[in-house]
Amino acid sequence: MDGVKLFSLKKIRHPKGDIYHALRQSDPAFSGFGEAYFSSVKYGEIKGWKKHTVMHLNIVVPIGEIQFVIYDDRKGSSTLGQFFKINLSHENYKRLTVSPNLWIAFRGRGRGPNMLLNIANIEHDPNESQNMILSDLNYAW
Amino acid sequence: MDGVKLFSLKKIRHPKGDIYHALRQSDPAFSGFGEAYFSSVKYGEIKGWKKHTVMHLNIVVPIGEIQFVIYDDRKGSSTLGQFFKINLSHENYKRLTVSPNLWIAFRGRGRGPNMLLNIANIEHDPNESQNMILSDLNYAW
Repeated sequence: MDGVKLFSLKKIRHPKGDIYHALRQSDPAFSGFGEAYFSSVKYGEIKGWKKHTVMHLNIVVPIGEIQFVIYDDRKGSSTLGQFFKINLSHENYKRLTVSPNLWIAFRGRGRGPNMLLNIANIEHDPNESQNMILSDLNYAW
Repeated sequence: MDGVKLFSLKKIRHPKGDIYHALRQSDPAFSGFGEAYFSSVKYGEIKGWKKHTVMHLNIVVPIGEIQFVIYDDRKGSSTLGQFFKINLSHENYKRLTVSPNLWIAFRGRGRGPNMLLNIANIEHDPNESQNMILSDLNYAW
């Protein structure tokens, strides 16, 4: 989808506990550091839809499994009207980069804790995001 | 300890899954963004000792419980020869900021996964850190 990218990330095996890369300043996807925060989502629960108008998202899932769905309603976009779906976890350990003006929702898929880290290019600002209720988009969860 | 700071962080309760703050660009402790990575440590295992000579550490523990011990051998330091100990977890959810030239080691305390996020001011560089074996410092783990 235009504005959505997936980057492979290193997992470094260690007998005492593995190391997981997340984001480097020199990564092509890096768009500045505003804030880092965690969002957890319980098994079966869905958070969304949310659209950021300024924030670039850099998402990794260090624990559990989360299904992300992104919807494009941008006028003139080459992927207008499309949904993009991806599951992230230790098994599929990647960084998901999402440009502003795309709708995003995510569901907890693991029975234990499911948690994402978002490293955003701006600090949280309630005025730059919009919300829809889940049923406002016709997606077969 | 001189060069070590603890900052309270917000946990925002949400019925579908809580949100945990980590670091903002406007935080007084922010010293630039170089790299973010996760390090996990199994129950009872200890990683360390390690000393960074350039890297400032910004550590949070989003999952499990980790005991950190920091040792100061800096000539002329007001806390020379001292150990500083702190346990971080959801229950004691704080950001631990560590200046360069302090020794650090950490132990997994939770039976499930224990994981830290470090948001460092520089990218990983093997030439800026030193290691000691655990028994090189006389600390009663």
